Amino acid sequence: MNSLETYSKLIEKEISTFSFPLHPQNLYDPLRYFMTLGGKRMRPMLTLMSAKLFQKTEKESISAALAVELFHNFSLIHDDIMDDAPLRRAKQTVHEKWNTNIAILSGDVLFVKAYEQICNNPPHLIPELLNVFNRTAIEVCEGQQMDMDFETRNDVTSEEYIEMIRLKTSVLLGCALEMGAIIGETSIENRKALYDFGVHLGIAFQIQDDLLDLYGNPEKVGKQVGGDVLANKKTLLSILAKSLASVEQQQKLNSLQKETNQKEKLTQTISIFESLNVQEHCKQEMTKHYSHAMNALRSISTNESYQELEELAEYLFHRDY
Amino acid sequence: MNSLETYSKLIEKEISTFSFPLHPQNLYDPLRYFMTLGGKRMRPMLTLMSAKLFQKTEKESISAALAVELFHNFSLIHDDIMDDAPLRRAKQTVHEKWNTNIAILSGDVLFVKAYEQICNNPPHLIPELLNVFNRTAIEVCEGQQMDMDFETRNDVTSEEYIEMIRLKTSVLLGCALEMGAIIGETSIENRKALYDFGVHLGIAFQIQDDLLDLYGNPEKVGKQVGGDVLANKKTLLSILAKSLASVEQQQKLNSLQKETNQKEKLTQTISIFESLNVQEHCKQEMTKHYSHAMNALRSISTNESYQELEELAEYLFHRDY
Repeated sequence: MNSLETYSKLIEKEISTFSFPLHPQNLYDPLRYFMTLGGKRMRPMLTLMSAKLFQKTEKESISAALAVELFHNFSLIHDDIMDDAPLRRAKQTVHEKWNTNIAILSGDVLFVKAYEQICNNPPHLIPELLNVFNRTAIEVCEGQQMDMDFETRNDVTSEEYIEMIRLKTSVLLGCALEMGAIIGETSIENRKALYDFGVHLGIAFQIQDDLLDLYGNPEKVGKQVGGDVLANKKTLLSILAKSLASVEQQQKLNSLQKETNQKEKLTQTISIFESLNVQEHCKQEMTKHYSHAMNALRSISTNESYQELEELAEYLFHRDY
Repeated sequence: MNSLETYSKLIEKEISTFSFPLHPQNLYDPLRYFMTLGGKRMRPMLTLMSAKLFQKTEKESISAALAVELFHNFSLIHDDIMDDAPLRRAKQTVHEKWNTNIAILSGDVLFVKAYEQICNNPPHLIPELLNVFNRTAIEVCEGQQMDMDFETRNDVTSEEYIEMIRLKTSVLLGCALEMGAIIGETSIENRKALYDFGVHLGIAFQIQDDLLDLYGNPEKVGKQVGGDVLANKKTLLSILAKSLASVEQQQKLNSLQKETNQKEKLTQTISIFESLNVQEHCKQEMTKHYSHAMNALRSISTNESYQELEELAEYLFHRDY
């Protein structure tokens, strides 16, 4: 994955040369800390690759790429507060290391920093970039709200769940790619195709996450298998299971939520999932979105190769399970 | 104040016709609620008046005016969380009426809504409007952080305090006016004069707030006299007193912070303030900024009358004390 590494290093270098002001220290220290925690930097990579499809250099697309990455990090800082998460990338979250007020405020500043990056583009492109960016930012917030609402609901449908992950995580991939296409000054059709590629890739990736949590190879997944089931977390698996289950199976699934013997809880839940063929249904849904993404990619009209984007998609899905 | 009322009604009407989506309800209900709590709508008024100086209609400047008002409301929602404030305009704050997570997230959406309004302007003006708006948004966050930092510091100077109020509250008035000037496509000199008018008016207004809290007419001020002293809040009065006090007076002021008899605390603090002539020093500082503001206003080169802005400034300062 040599090309991915090259992009990743370029983005990491850009972020490391970012200079936040020294004062007020409590506002900018958290940003210096959080922005260098790492991550795959997949979103800015998508912007760079997308712009390259239309002969734009990394220098021409880096500001839009950084805007997306800064926005992503802003949303992580605020989401971590809302989810009361102690860790992010194995390090303390901002509200844990400092406090909630500082996490709210430094998040807000990071959001503005994203807009500043958009302003570094050619003036005639700024209104279009902003349109996509604003719409996406609102959708990401809507997705986060839906996710929070789902916690206290028992009637979430699989359609609602997929709509939630589309908004919360997938539209930002679409936005990253579309911003590259805007910089590339290409056709509306190409813009839409790249956006669709990102959104459906994102949905497929998120469904894969749900699958890996229960059926993944624990050594490769890097976390406890079945963590979602043990935490009674809503996933596409649990939602599909509920919708397919008989009344008796539904009652059993409900009572398993209160089961304290972890091994018992996991084994019995998996057994019901198996009898309902939930894993297969989930895989079908994932494959549907993955195919949709790849078809959108192949519909792009350009003389450049979209091989890099194809490789990135394959790389993302090359996780054992 | 007929002209002010006309502007205020126009802005109120624009805000009331704002249509936030219905879903997710927990994201948009708080915004419908908060945006109609009222307020003086002074900031959007400044934008409309400023644009009018250069023959621009309200229709041409209303989007920029709303951007400033939406941003202001976003910052209030987040500040109320940080300050743990139960009430805003005599009504429950968003985090009290809903919860902190919803207040963070609906605040974030409101911030994007402000940027959406900026996008409603002529494309060639958007980059300039964004430059001023982004810089201001960052400064407002910096001011809020300084204010939070001051709570645990005992060595805040009057210069630092004025810098804090400049950032936290005054630059947004400058921004509101400058955005009107950008829409008016006027000279850099006029833009700067209007910005300076707003910033110094804002500083003077904030100092007047500190003065009114202790020396205002309780019936007109509408809150308990001396509330800041009783809460040991840092104000320009307390900071100046500390800097002017003898060692003995400093010790007395320190011990008064722990005094539980409210009447005693107030009387003795006022007595020390009087012996140090603190009220007069404060008034001088206020007058200095007010004069600076009015001189900036008078330096504007336009055929239109700036009487409305002069009247607004006079109206703001026509508070009894």
